[in-house]
Amino acid sequence: MRPGSDVSHLALLGYDPIKYYSGRGPFEAAGVGIKLRPGDLCFRANFSTVDRKGILIDRRANRIMDASVFENALNNIRLPGVEVLIKAGVSHRAALVLRPLKGTVLSSAVAGTDPHTTLVKPCEAKPTDGSAQAKHTAALINEFVASAHNALERHSFNKQRVREKMLPANMLLLRGVGFSPTLEPFENKHGLRATCIAGGAMYKGLARLVGMDVVFVRGATGRSDTDLNAKVEAVLKALPRTDFVFMHVKATDSFGEDGDFVGKRNFIERVDSALSPIVSLENTFVVVTGDHSTSCTLKAHTADPVPILISGPGVRRDAARAFGERECARGGLGRIRGLDVMKEVVNLLGRTPLYGA
Amino acid sequence: MRPGSDVSHLALLGYDPIKYYSGRGPFEAAGVGIKLRPGDLCFRANFSTVDRKGILIDRRANRIMDASVFENALNNIRLPGVEVLIKAGVSHRAALVLRPLKGTVLSSAVAGTDPHTTLVKPCEAKPTDGSAQAKHTAALINEFVASAHNALERHSFNKQRVREKMLPANMLLLRGVGFSPTLEPFENKHGLRATCIAGGAMYKGLARLVGMDVVFVRGATGRSDTDLNAKVEAVLKALPRTDFVFMHVKATDSFGEDGDFVGKRNFIERVDSALSPIVSLENTFVVVTGDHSTSCTLKAHTADPVPILISGPGVRRDAARAFGERECARGGLGRIRGLDVMKEVVNLLGRTPLYGA
Repeated sequence: MRPGSDVSHLALLGYDPIKYYSGRGPFEAAGVGIKLRPGDLCFRANFSTVDRKGILIDRRANRIMDASVFENALNNIRLPGVEVLIKAGVSHRAALVLRPLKGTVLSSAVAGTDPHTTLVKPCEAKPTDGSAQAKHTAALINEFVASAHNALERHSFNKQRVREKMLPANMLLLRGVGFSPTLEPFENKHGLRATCIAGGAMYKGLARLVGMDVVFVRGATGRSDTDLNAKVEAVLKALPRTDFVFMHVKATDSFGEDGDFVGKRNFIERVDSALSPIVSLENTFVVVTGDHSTSCTLKAHTADPVPILISGPGVRRDAARAFGERECARGGLGRIRGLDVMKEVVNLLGRTPLYGA
Repeated sequence: MRPGSDVSHLALLGYDPIKYYSGRGPFEAAGVGIKLRPGDLCFRANFSTVDRKGILIDRRANRIMDASVFENALNNIRLPGVEVLIKAGVSHRAALVLRPLKGTVLSSAVAGTDPHTTLVKPCEAKPTDGSAQAKHTAALINEFVASAHNALERHSFNKQRVREKMLPANMLLLRGVGFSPTLEPFENKHGLRATCIAGGAMYKGLARLVGMDVVFVRGATGRSDTDLNAKVEAVLKALPRTDFVFMHVKATDSFGEDGDFVGKRNFIERVDSALSPIVSLENTFVVVTGDHSTSCTLKAHTADPVPILISGPGVRRDAARAFGERECARGGLGRIRGLDVMKEVVNLLGRTPLYGA
């Protein structure tokens, strides 16, 4: 499988993506802090700019710094049979939730409105199957997008931006549609109380959806300017009150996506040295791995295997003498699947129940 | 998975435990020689001792040497709708089968009566789901246990033991409940006539359930006093008239369970040298492996991988130069699952049918 980061993280945490993944929307929505309920239809949203003819001229409204000023106006939009919840994330990013009222059934069989390019009109939301629910949901989305465009055009903050010769954030682009998944809490599933330390909204969202404690860390941005030392300190601080810490670093992947080999190498070296207080912990198991490979040549995620390192009391040594793709290929774990990583962890912690007698 | 020995042997012989495992009882029952039928509800049983107030004072009746004297009295117990079959095994061990008569439906959703400790009363059998069958089955078990207690108290052999100041075997503790599984015969499944050479009742029982020939070997005890040379001789004797010999050695596991590292190492060395007539056979494939890892530190089964060695005509050599966990981790088989071992064996024997053209 060539996985998106949402899919690969589901697997790494022990949740079969084939069973549980229904789109990135719910992870982003939970990540920006919307408390999801079963049946919620979720989208990632971009604040963007269209011209007077409705042509998309900037997919990110010139990376507007804070779009939370628009939340009130957008949350006041009334649609038949659904409640609208919208919350801004970092920069131009936001999440939209359509929460069905009693009697309404929505469908996730709808294509988003983001054309993923500029100088065209945003797409109309369209049903991707022949069901009445999908047709109805697509119509609701188009109605919402039109209302949102009106509300944003009239918004004083956008009028101010236009006066200042800045691009107004007058359009929402929707993608990553998916229903809020029902995920067994991590603590039930693995018997481990867990804490998440991450910058990116999606990772925090996934962590919230599986019931992890999500720690806010000042300076954790999910970008290459992130404060790695602050994250490591947060891990060390969390450890005494939790069984399991999931710490995520995003920028290695982003450098790969940008095809920036040197940037990626340098950032990996920064991560290496930042991790040393964790790696030198005693009586603690440490797992270091990636959620997928990101090729600098292809500027994309690939399905290649990633190295994984597990250290801790009683862990068997193997022939690998360094941490990297080639060296780990001769390691004792062989080639395992992401879905099996938590099984290894739970076994090493001595928490795997006996099956049989 | 952290497997019990029953579960791991099912897998090693090619039977998916998730599909076929329903409790240890049937393996023990088949092991002591009860011919099982579909629908039989089976238990492991211990002959034990309770005092006059019904408090358990010895879970093994001072490891009574031969409990077969009680079989007649216990097999005469009449219960409504079921036939009672009980057979003693080695020492204090026995197996109980409740065979439903026409019209009776039993349930395996019942907890056993063994409290796994002393100075308490044995547990009452209790239903573990809300079904009428489970309630009825639990009531039957409790009725059986009470009748068995009466019969054992009155038994002349126990009266004799009391006169001789020995603990009477006046109570049965039941555990490992499970229905007799329907397992495709080994010969059908793998195309190999098979023979089992083992000391422990459970292994012989599993072998019988899959239709293996089970050879009685004098001195094969399933303990560290077992006669390894006699077992190896039995293997050599069986080979001309069978395609596959399953030889089991138990004590390596038992030393691990006891945390006795030195005992385990010494016993492995004994196994090593006892196996040499087998390893030096020509035109014969030899597979040496464990059914699970047993940690001397944790004194328990773990889910860690076990080494496996396959030798024989045309088997590819790999980089492993010794037989052990670390060395085999770099072997050519990689990390395979127990369920896949028989597939390797059948392939090496040239018996795997072609799939496709």
